[in-house]
Amino acid sequence: MTAVGFIGLGIMGSPMAGHLVAAGHHVTGFDVNRASVDRLVAAGGKGASSVAEAVREAAVVITMLPNHPQVEQVVLGEDGVLANAASGTLLIDMSTIRPETSIAVATTGVERGVRVLDAPVSGGEAGAKQASLSIMAGGTEADFAAAKPILEVLGTTIVHVGRHGAGQVVKAANQLVVAGIYALVSEAIVLLDASGVDAKSGLDVLAGGLAANRILDLKRDSMIAREFTPGFRIDLHYKDMGIVLDAARQSDVALPVSGLVAQLVAAARAMGYGSLDHSALLKVSEQLAGRS
Amino acid sequence: MTAVGFIGLGIMGSPMAGHLVAAGHHVTGFDVNRASVDRLVAAGGKGASSVAEAVREAAVVITMLPNHPQVEQVVLGEDGVLANAASGTLLIDMSTIRPETSIAVATTGVERGVRVLDAPVSGGEAGAKQASLSIMAGGTEADFAAAKPILEVLGTTIVHVGRHGAGQVVKAANQLVVAGIYALVSEAIVLLDASGVDAKSGLDVLAGGLAANRILDLKRDSMIAREFTPGFRIDLHYKDMGIVLDAARQSDVALPVSGLVAQLVAAARAMGYGSLDHSALLKVSEQLAGRS
Amino acid sequence: MTAVGFIGLGIMGSPMAGHLVAAGHHVTGFDVNRASVDRLVAAGGKGASSVAEAVREAAVVITMLPNHPQVEQVVLGEDGVLANAASGTLLIDMSTIRPETSIAVATTGVERGVRVLDAPVSGGEAGAKQASLSIMAGGTEADFAAAKPILEVLGTTIVHVGRHGAGQVVKAANQLVVAGIYALVSEAIVLLDASGVDAKSGLDVLAGGLAANRILDLKRDSMIAREFTPGFRIDLHYKDMGIVLDAARQSDVALPVSGLVAQLVAAARAMGYGSLDHSALLKVSEQLAGRS
Amino acid sequence: MTAVGFIGLGIMGSPMAGHLVAAGHHVTGFDVNRASVDRLVAAGGKGASSVAEAVREAAVVITMLPNHPQVEQVVLGEDGVLANAASGTLLIDMSTIRPETSIAVATTGVERGVRVLDAPVSGGEAGAKQASLSIMAGGTEADFAAAKPILEVLGTTIVHVGRHGAGQVVKAANQLVVAGIYALVSEAIVLLDASGVDAKSGLDVLAGGLAANRILDLKRDSMIAREFTPGFRIDLHYKDMGIVLDAARQSDVALPVSGLVAQLVAAARAMGYGSLDHSALLKVSEQLAGRS
Repeated sequence: MTAVGFIGLGIMGSPMAGHLVAAGHHVTGFDVNRASVDRLVAAGGKGASSVAEAVREAAVVITMLPNHPQVEQVVLGEDGVLANAASGTLLIDMSTIRPETSIAVATTGVERGVRVLDAPVSGGEAGAKQASLSIMAGGTEADFAAAKPILEVLGTTIVHVGRHGAGQVVKAANQLVVAGIYALVSEAIVLLDASGVDAKSGLDVLAGGLAANRILDLKRDSMIAREFTPGFRIDLHYKDMGIVLDAARQSDVALPVSGLVAQLVAAARAMGYGSLDHSALLKVSEQLAGRS
Repeated sequence: MTAVGFIGLGIMGSPMAGHLVAAGHHVTGFDVNRASVDRLVAAGGKGASSVAEAVREAAVVITMLPNHPQVEQVVLGEDGVLANAASGTLLIDMSTIRPETSIAVATTGVERGVRVLDAPVSGGEAGAKQASLSIMAGGTEADFAAAKPILEVLGTTIVHVGRHGAGQVVKAANQLVVAGIYALVSEAIVLLDASGVDAKSGLDVLAGGLAANRILDLKRDSMIAREFTPGFRIDLHYKDMGIVLDAARQSDVALPVSGLVAQLVAAARAMGYGSLDHSALLKVSEQLAGRS
Repeated sequence: MTAVGFIGLGIMGSPMAGHLVAAGHHVTGFDVNRASVDRLVAAGGKGASSVAEAVREAAVVITMLPNHPQVEQVVLGEDGVLANAASGTLLIDMSTIRPETSIAVATTGVERGVRVLDAPVSGGEAGAKQASLSIMAGGTEADFAAAKPILEVLGTTIVHVGRHGAGQVVKAANQLVVAGIYALVSEAIVLLDASGVDAKSGLDVLAGGLAANRILDLKRDSMIAREFTPGFRIDLHYKDMGIVLDAARQSDVALPVSGLVAQLVAAARAMGYGSLDHSALLKVSEQLAGRS
Repeated sequence: MTAVGFIGLGIMGSPMAGHLVAAGHHVTGFDVNRASVDRLVAAGGKGASSVAEAVREAAVVITMLPNHPQVEQVVLGEDGVLANAASGTLLIDMSTIRPETSIAVATTGVERGVRVLDAPVSGGEAGAKQASLSIMAGGTEADFAAAKPILEVLGTTIVHVGRHGAGQVVKAANQLVVAGIYALVSEAIVLLDASGVDAKSGLDVLAGGLAANRILDLKRDSMIAREFTPGFRIDLHYKDMGIVLDAARQSDVALPVSGLVAQLVAAARAMGYGSLDHSALLKVSEQLAGRS
């Protein structure tokens, strides 16, 4: 059993830390929100009152944080993970952040004798609760092998996709395809509706051919019903589209469709739909079509 | 067994007419290309030397033509289908054309006592050869019921999606989603490549999550190998994106992502990739990313 | 003085025909709307009760019609201009239509001994009334020279831009730039407003530098005041963006920014702003920004 | 005469500092590149070997730096401007950076008793050399009034556009309109060329009507000649489009056309045109149109 320091016990981190406790690991958790720490203690973990305390005795440190500024502060900051972790510690950053920051964390980690993986996840809150996350990891083969037993407690698909930052790039690619398909399905629904064609019949046909995709499978009924309970919130996908564009800048490529879709996700948020499911991109398409 | 007039014996129409012959129907075929007619005769059908001749004795007429000008000429023209078909004939137009023309054909048909369905297909040349097409039909319930035994000879998924023109609208919705997903997968590949991440590993992860789609399943290996043998040609998808935008105009809706994707398909054609598979949209994305 | 047949006496055609009368030409006008013909008669012109009658005695025929279907009917139709014009007549089609149709009209005209120019205008209703239109003409040098004295009665900038259809292409290029600048200025206003910066001060700076443009000069005050009385209606610019995309298809080029802007103009119309000035594109930008 | 500390003596900063010397101010300059400092000394200024030295005796400090990380380091950093400036100093940051950083600099400045203006410029290298810059300033009225005599040495249009950050927002709005107009003019040229219409004649017409803009005036001849010597480099406009999108995120608005144009500018850079003039956006449009 491993001594795990777990930092970031939010909607995702809390059930993840719980699974590690249940699997017999010695988990010491920290969060700026004390109630989250208490919940971990109630579940059989140990509470820490600082990053330093959570990290000091750990063989593995997991961070699950909102975005790159938090990672920069918690990991690279003055009293952060790298300043307090013992040499040889394995840091698995499971936050979804821009690849650039993951690479910077890994570089600094190596300088201080800390091994680093970026390992963002997909599958959302449900995947975290059911320990069915997809995990895409970037870093060395050896560090991935070392992390694997821990990651297998949290997810079902665990893939080593390349060197430092690669996990984030794959996550970004995933998020651009997901947002884009939502936009396309939304335009399809708008076109069907406006043409007086039953959207359900139409999408059923699409789902049976080359246009088939998981979003059609899982979400077409709720989209047709205009039911947008999250799921994965527009606000989070908005953040992720920012990462997509950052990653594109970092690698010096142009992504015109992603650039447009990012603005439509921004529109959904600006229109006040930030806390709805990302399928609410349909509301933007409808508004542009004068159908709302 | 039914007397079928079949007009348009090209890449799609030829195998379709062959299946009808094989199923025991009495098929009289016409095409401007005499060799195509000869092929049908060799397969056991009858050849006609004009639209009029193909249509005169038929209970069911099928048209499978390149685009709306051909349908206007062959069906609505002076010596066309409607001018020659007996009252009560059922015309099934299986061409992919803009909904507007399908509605005009149906309106004129009704005036002349001819029943009309629009019934475009997806599945391409392979689907036509294997009689595994998806067929989306617009028109009345009764006419759809009458057509169904014939259509079942040609395809495996046969759906009545609404009134006249609805088949074309659903086909348009299908094509916009397909082209859009190609564009998104292309941008994902470009981002992975440019970031130094193995595209195969990356897309494997995408195919296991919410980004999963049939194009990833069927085409990711060939796209990564830059293998673009058609399949369905860019030139045809270019034509279809024109129909998508026509349908949007007709229904007075705005489709911004489709509007951009249509231009990228046009770019693929302008760059000289018209006769490659539609997955060659990747070549446009690569060029925009300075990676070609 | 010239015998002029003038067909299409609408918002644009009516004052244009009036100027020709005032300049001493013998103008015989026709319109499907009889009141428009009466108005011309009151102004000193002659009224015709058919295209044929307006055309028969004319040395020059001018057509000013809504779009290509009307031109096809009025010019190419059975009892249309080409069927009735004397050999050697000069037909100046001043309608804004797709280049493809202008070329078809010219080709047919030549076959029948009628000389043809496409000569669309910009400057709108105000320009028609003040005889200050910009006129961009396509056709032969000789025909342009012959038309020039007539065109100089109607406009101030009269340019021969190339062969048949070239006038329409230049008009399309004009309209894509105009709509695009409206979209850009709209996004600038939205950004300034949302950032708490006074839009007037901001746009004043823009108008003094490389971003300077006539739309900023003429329309920034009314846009900031959200005053959208036409001017040139969204519905007309929507039609023109259709011509832009048709022209692009015809010449086999891709225009991604125009493709997106066309959809935003379509959105303005779909949202119900069709009869507002084209500067009302700002309302779409605001809606996408959650600021309306 | 004022004691001015000037930090950042690059292509822009060097001639600007020279003008201040020529106007009689006591300028102490610093740059990481020693040769730049030597040039200032040769022109009659004083050289400093650190930020601290340049700032210590100054009543006004001007910073002209590449982007926000440099401003963060030079202004906010440990031995930076704010750490060394005397209380009451006026800091004029003339760098083009994201509004967010300008606001942070102003907030920190106020805490330390330093008055701050953001005052980005347009007009490029030529404007810097000819002291004809446009300067858009954000900050308090009083600080703007105090800065004005200094700014008047550097530019001809000097406008106070609002509170802290407002200068950057206006600059961002300017850059989005400029890049967008380049994209539109490029698409117009591509359409004219591909349609066989002389681009020069066509653009001349556009320049005489509602599509008129300064870019057409200044750049249409060089664009038609495919002459792309900078001027203002694609690489810099690429940086500025990043600021546009950052500003949009900061203010929670969606800018779809800007989002697409930003990707086209990124494409120009990815294709290797980063050191050409921004009018080289035409090369992207041509490539998309298969015309290169």
